[in-house]
Amino acid sequence: MEIKERILSKAEALFWKFGTRSITMDDISRDIGISKKTLYQHFTDKDDIVYQVIQYRMDQNRENVSCRLATAQDPIEEILLASELMRQYLAEMNPALLIDVQRHYPRAWEICTEFKEKFLLESIRSNLKRGIEQGLYRSEIDIEIMARLRVELIRMAYDTDVFPRMLAGMKEVQIQLLHHFVRGILTEKGSIIYNQYVQQYQNDPAFSPK
Amino acid sequence: MEIKERILSKAEALFWKFGTRSITMDDISRDIGISKKTLYQHFTDKDDIVYQVIQYRMDQNRENVSCRLATAQDPIEEILLASELMRQYLAEMNPALLIDVQRHYPRAWEICTEFKEKFLLESIRSNLKRGIEQGLYRSEIDIEIMARLRVELIRMAYDTDVFPRMLAGMKEVQIQLLHHFVRGILTEKGSIIYNQYVQQYQNDPAFSPK
Repeated sequence: MEIKERILSKAEALFWKFGTRSITMDDISRDIGISKKTLYQHFTDKDDIVYQVIQYRMDQNRENVSCRLATAQDPIEEILLASELMRQYLAEMNPALLIDVQRHYPRAWEICTEFKEKFLLESIRSNLKRGIEQGLYRSEIDIEIMARLRVELIRMAYDTDVFPRMLAGMKEVQIQLLHHFVRGILTEKGSIIYNQYVQQYQNDPAFSPK
Repeated sequence: MEIKERILSKAEALFWKFGTRSITMDDISRDIGISKKTLYQHFTDKDDIVYQVIQYRMDQNRENVSCRLATAQDPIEEILLASELMRQYLAEMNPALLIDVQRHYPRAWEICTEFKEKFLLESIRSNLKRGIEQGLYRSEIDIEIMARLRVELIRMAYDTDVFPRMLAGMKEVQIQLLHHFVRGILTEKGSIIYNQYVQQYQNDPAFSPK
């Protein structure tokens, strides 16, 4: 791993654990065992590190999602796999860190918004389009409305105003919302295939619809 | 109509049209053609009128919904009718007025929140429970999660952050979200009945799934 990538990976771990605000350039260089001079050769300041850490993470996520989805047999398996990956990413994230970035690092936050708006929304649009073409999703659905609904459902599962924490685990909320969403768009042909995946994944708790 | 109800009805019309802030006690008494003294016999101040207008409106809505739903044959027709009523109420409301009330009349806003949290949420829970008992909705759905999802979907259709206004009419968004929600919870038996309602209502644009 080249030095820059090593710095990003270590800085990310520090931010994840302690948030961005309490971590200084000194902390980062000490933790990696490099001089501050070396650190400043690669990054202009902490803002720059936060920005590049977020960019690095989103690039990684995008790449992982693309690799994983290439193995899907059809749009239905794709949406199930993609949702599970998103769930994993979001579970690993420290929500306090995201709020921190949103409040204090607008440039870095823009990358998160872009990930959601461009990559996520575009992937779902494409999935819905192919699903309709293959006769798996109903042709009456409005792709734009349904794609935006799905993005919002991913966010909503974490919204304690909508789903107070005591009711059910976040994971249960996400899984219910995912399977409800998919069932709501399926044709009869799609339902048969969907039920096969539910059977196939039934021992995998990540995919269980209940 | 007794005088108090007449005041509430006129004040409501004024608020709907001009918002609450620009309307004074003078405007209200002048518009109704009563003295300010008479107005103050029934209401302590404008806050009191706003509060009672909202309460009156929510009571009316609750009563209308209950009457209308008593005609439904089963939980599926009930959810279709109820959603259409909610859509009508929200379409009649001036969004600027709601924001006004939320910001400046916390006591009145509490009635709106209570309508949403208690009446709406409780009605949907009850609908889902009966639908499951009658074999129309899948028994695997989590009633609490799905009820809160449905309340949030009603709100979401008006959220221009989620559905930018240029994309589709609000009505189209609401109808797509409603029918997607219902399809997502149906059993096979429920699907047959649902499709009959879609057929039956197909010439009624309010119910058309597309």
